[in-house]
Amino acid sequence: MKVKVGINGYGTIGKRVAYAVTRQDDMKLIGVTKTKPDFEAYRAKELGIPVYAAGEEFLPRFENAGFEVAGTLSDLLEKVDVIVDATPGGMGAKNKAVYEKAGVKAIFQGGEKASTAEVSFVAQANYEKALGKDYVRVVSCNTTGLIRTLSAVQEYIDYVYAVMIRRAADPNDIKHGPINAIKPSVTVPSHHGPDVQTVIPINIETSAFVVPTTIMHVHSIMVELKKPLEAKDVIDIFENTTRVLLFEKEKGFESTAQLIEFARDLHREWNNLYEIAVWKESISVRGNRLFYIQAVHQESDVVPENIDAIRAMFEMADKWESIRKTNQSLGILK
Amino acid sequence: MKVKVGINGYGTIGKRVAYAVTRQDDMKLIGVTKTKPDFEAYRAKELGIPVYAAGEEFLPRFENAGFEVAGTLSDLLEKVDVIVDATPGGMGAKNKAVYEKAGVKAIFQGGEKASTAEVSFVAQANYEKALGKDYVRVVSCNTTGLIRTLSAVQEYIDYVYAVMIRRAADPNDIKHGPINAIKPSVTVPSHHGPDVQTVIPINIETSAFVVPTTIMHVHSIMVELKKPLEAKDVIDIFENTTRVLLFEKEKGFESTAQLIEFARDLHREWNNLYEIAVWKESISVRGNRLFYIQAVHQESDVVPENIDAIRAMFEMADKWESIRKTNQSLGILK
Amino acid sequence: MKVKVGINGYGTIGKRVAYAVTRQDDMKLIGVTKTKPDFEAYRAKELGIPVYAAGEEFLPRFENAGFEVAGTLSDLLEKVDVIVDATPGGMGAKNKAVYEKAGVKAIFQGGEKASTAEVSFVAQANYEKALGKDYVRVVSCNTTGLIRTLSAVQEYIDYVYAVMIRRAADPNDIKHGPINAIKPSVTVPSHHGPDVQTVIPINIETSAFVVPTTIMHVHSIMVELKKPLEAKDVIDIFENTTRVLLFEKEKGFESTAQLIEFARDLHREWNNLYEIAVWKESISVRGNRLFYIQAVHQESDVVPENIDAIRAMFEMADKWESIRKTNQSLGILK
Amino acid sequence: MKVKVGINGYGTIGKRVAYAVTRQDDMKLIGVTKTKPDFEAYRAKELGIPVYAAGEEFLPRFENAGFEVAGTLSDLLEKVDVIVDATPGGMGAKNKAVYEKAGVKAIFQGGEKASTAEVSFVAQANYEKALGKDYVRVVSCNTTGLIRTLSAVQEYIDYVYAVMIRRAADPNDIKHGPINAIKPSVTVPSHHGPDVQTVIPINIETSAFVVPTTIMHVHSIMVELKKPLEAKDVIDIFENTTRVLLFEKEKGFESTAQLIEFARDLHREWNNLYEIAVWKESISVRGNRLFYIQAVHQESDVVPENIDAIRAMFEMADKWESIRKTNQSLGILK
Repeated sequence: MKVKVGINGYGTIGKRVAYAVTRQDDMKLIGVTKTKPDFEAYRAKELGIPVYAAGEEFLPRFENAGFEVAGTLSDLLEKVDVIVDATPGGMGAKNKAVYEKAGVKAIFQGGEKASTAEVSFVAQANYEKALGKDYVRVVSCNTTGLIRTLSAVQEYIDYVYAVMIRRAADPNDIKHGPINAIKPSVTVPSHHGPDVQTVIPINIETSAFVVPTTIMHVHSIMVELKKPLEAKDVIDIFENTTRVLLFEKEKGFESTAQLIEFARDLHREWNNLYEIAVWKESISVRGNRLFYIQAVHQESDVVPENIDAIRAMFEMADKWESIRKTNQSLGILK
Repeated sequence: MKVKVGINGYGTIGKRVAYAVTRQDDMKLIGVTKTKPDFEAYRAKELGIPVYAAGEEFLPRFENAGFEVAGTLSDLLEKVDVIVDATPGGMGAKNKAVYEKAGVKAIFQGGEKASTAEVSFVAQANYEKALGKDYVRVVSCNTTGLIRTLSAVQEYIDYVYAVMIRRAADPNDIKHGPINAIKPSVTVPSHHGPDVQTVIPINIETSAFVVPTTIMHVHSIMVELKKPLEAKDVIDIFENTTRVLLFEKEKGFESTAQLIEFARDLHREWNNLYEIAVWKESISVRGNRLFYIQAVHQESDVVPENIDAIRAMFEMADKWESIRKTNQSLGILK
Repeated sequence: MKVKVGINGYGTIGKRVAYAVTRQDDMKLIGVTKTKPDFEAYRAKELGIPVYAAGEEFLPRFENAGFEVAGTLSDLLEKVDVIVDATPGGMGAKNKAVYEKAGVKAIFQGGEKASTAEVSFVAQANYEKALGKDYVRVVSCNTTGLIRTLSAVQEYIDYVYAVMIRRAADPNDIKHGPINAIKPSVTVPSHHGPDVQTVIPINIETSAFVVPTTIMHVHSIMVELKKPLEAKDVIDIFENTTRVLLFEKEKGFESTAQLIEFARDLHREWNNLYEIAVWKESISVRGNRLFYIQAVHQESDVVPENIDAIRAMFEMADKWESIRKTNQSLGILK
Repeated sequence: MKVKVGINGYGTIGKRVAYAVTRQDDMKLIGVTKTKPDFEAYRAKELGIPVYAAGEEFLPRFENAGFEVAGTLSDLLEKVDVIVDATPGGMGAKNKAVYEKAGVKAIFQGGEKASTAEVSFVAQANYEKALGKDYVRVVSCNTTGLIRTLSAVQEYIDYVYAVMIRRAADPNDIKHGPINAIKPSVTVPSHHGPDVQTVIPINIETSAFVVPTTIMHVHSIMVELKKPLEAKDVIDIFENTTRVLLFEKEKGFESTAQLIEFARDLHREWNNLYEIAVWKESISVRGNRLFYIQAVHQESDVVPENIDAIRAMFEMADKWESIRKTNQSLGILK
């Protein structure tokens, strides 16, 4: 028996999760919702994915364009075991009542508050916490990135200070700026530290900045250690951490541009770089402080988490079995 | 018997042509050259592609990195029937003597002068001119884009004025600016008009501007017609023109960003958009003037031309057979 | 007697016009309006300019911040002879009824429709048309730029095709993108041609593109001539045209960045470049076609027009006297 | 008697220092050097500043352009008491021998190694160290920014970790990228920490990133305190620190764009923001850690330091007298 999955919202995250679902042997994609018949909707149809209107209010748009939908969100909810809410931040909380009423489990994304779900989730950090749950929140791309590497060195952490340099808009988003400025979150520490703490109990503070780029976030991480650790140990640890990859500037990885080029060279779908990219040369320890720099592909790093969350919620596999299946199906390198 | 192909230069164009060669049933990729052992070189090796040093002077770099090469360019030249020169603009002309001495045919890219080769080439416009030739130049990405659409309406053209708004650097190139300025080619008309004339004999003048974007060029084209033509005729013509696609703003194609997203949604390798993208709504005729706007994916539009040029040079197929084979092998939509 | 001037909207255009008014010996700045007490409002106060709330609904914002205003827009209207409406595009039309009721003359900006005012205005092209009028529209930055140079060669024009490459946002605007894309106006010809025709009766068609830069627009202009003209004649004409300056790439003016640097080197307030910048080397004539490239500083080129419009509306000076006074007071080079 | 000052290199820094010299009542600008007759050279001439060729090898360029120079660098050196070396990074060290031979004192910029000069200099931190010296290095824009604020809280500092988000190119520089990427300095800690230590003896580590913007650098600073300090104390301290200004997001200072707009609104020459801009809301203390965010106008923050350095080298004024004179002459707010 395959778990029947619906996706509410077929944008940057939704379409990637939909694709990932189709790559699993224990899941079936039932349908996706759209608010308008744009090229992404046509592409879904071309792929044979049933497209539902995200609400009755959107039906006229589809009718006017002659785009036949399979129904509305409520129709979709009747057919699925779980809905992945990939709507814009804050809407998931509003949708929750609808999912509850329909009696379907739901996964929310990091744009929702932690309180929207029973557990906040990063597979390699707390898979077990989501076992059997009805409502799970996959944390944001940045938080996922922090947790992937920090959970790997968690036992050494006394305190973390992370500075996040964030892309201002996704490649497909032409509405948002800035075009030529740096915009700080002036409230320091920023909200990302507490968000990490919804998954792993570490002492962490962060600050965040928006810069005019579209392709990846970058994190400058400093860890105050509570027991000795050398740079080569950290390299070993990260080499053995799933969904974390080391990249060398010496091989030409000078910026986020070459990391994306790496994903393109692999012919990854949408140049997804599901793995967190750590610059190997940046890993250093001075006294009791560990430093490293990592980059996060905001469009895709949470995709495997959504798949693993489904398995945990239906208790379909244990942690490492799920991670292994997800990794293998998506071509995640390790 | 398959034609044995080498690629001199495994960068933006070279790696795409190499990939395209591996997709042909009548060609065999013998090897590629690199000047340094960067991640692209490692990727080639992973793919089982023999990597040669682009010259003896580069051997120490590979040796120091412990990267084993299959030889140097001269070794590669001994094994191939044709070399695709994908070196930086201007270097091809210098390399020509080496190719001549080795007795191999050669394809040059648009960064070289027309006089470097016997013929300048765009498959759908002048395939036959390259039949049996030893030296063929595939024209630049911009010139290819102009010729694809203009050759389709060639009989109607009295005069063309095209304004090219060019991306300043490729996605993988972080060296070049500008970051926040528009840079005109102050010599008007620019060199692109005469370059078009190396392939089709039309009356054309152009101007060109560099702007801070990495993903696509855009052309604003105005054609003075010598006989009547309506917008709907042009739509028909372009719908029946190979390697040209119509995109509608109404479906969400508001900018070059969504065109690239379309290629990503198709899971095209490196988000290649081999086809020239014409905005359907932009096609209009007022009096004796036709207007339209098109976008060019500078990283990939010349790739199919390189493949077709090989077939023409070895007289392996006639024009439409070659175009059909190339299109099918690369997933080109029409 | 000085004309009493109020400014409704103290943003990019409003603050520059306010400054310009203070530089005139025949005008008096009575006050400006703001919707919120931001740093621009504080700066106005520092300069001794009375600040009014743009409406009663905005008063609480000022009160909460402890920022004392001099009243609201209606109070300001009681004290002025003319109001310069520098509100966001489209709001001017709505404000007109208020101005009419208050019995004050009004100047609108290019974001309003031509029908909002009795005349659309560029001083050097049609100053006389505005004499004694109550409602005048200063056309947009792009339209002003086109008219400054085209009116200088008007008698030679058979047809104009202009391509506008537009900055996506002003330097102070961090909300708007795109960050990495080119966005065409897919309706060709664009609305700019008809807008030019509200001032000068020439045959003109245009297309327009938005690109990720903040500092200047650039226009690529092609004129089909109805009588012979040589490039050197055009250079002579432009050298004798007010508010048009020739710049040479040879002297380092390679892009819009160096044009702004020129204004900064002059210590112009806000690096205003009131003059339209034409690249001298770009001026060329081939057959019956004239080509040239110009750049427009969108933040400031319409400022002198607002001043001249005031003089025309109150019949304070004839055309060349007003232009001379305005130029001299603002340091316009010619 | 006024000190006679020459400027070697009339680019971004050189032209600003030249201007600043002309604003001092105890200095006289003798001349500046250029390598080519570009618009900056013409502007210097317009301002009545003698222009010298930066070397004999550059004379033909000036001759060909009909630009009359006042001589070469060696002629200039004969006439001055001190030369401000504002040549590109690394050239100053090479020029030092020439200055020594000519027997003139010299100021170097932060692109040179500390060992090039006798002392590295930030006026408010170590003015006295430069008294009577022959060779002084004004540290880089970023290092100056760090020292201005950190020296004000120096007695509280146990350890500093600063992350620098750097503009990729100056507004006038269209050669350098990246256009759409973030580029880390992968060697962590970066060289900026040791550079701070050439001026003040604090325990500091840094990391650095280049992002696609041209207008300002931003620093995210975390200080581990060795004695208690509250946010309001830090606000008090910074309010009383020269060349440091507090800006509030609440007043509209959301990004670096509005900081530059502030300087433009002041009609500062070249929109210079000589002062370091600290976001008031960002100042916070949590436990023993102080956080704050600041921005640095890379084109101008070192200009007052160059002026103060001259006074120190000739023992023309004591520290606070010099700072006061420099501030007043340049309109520095405090």
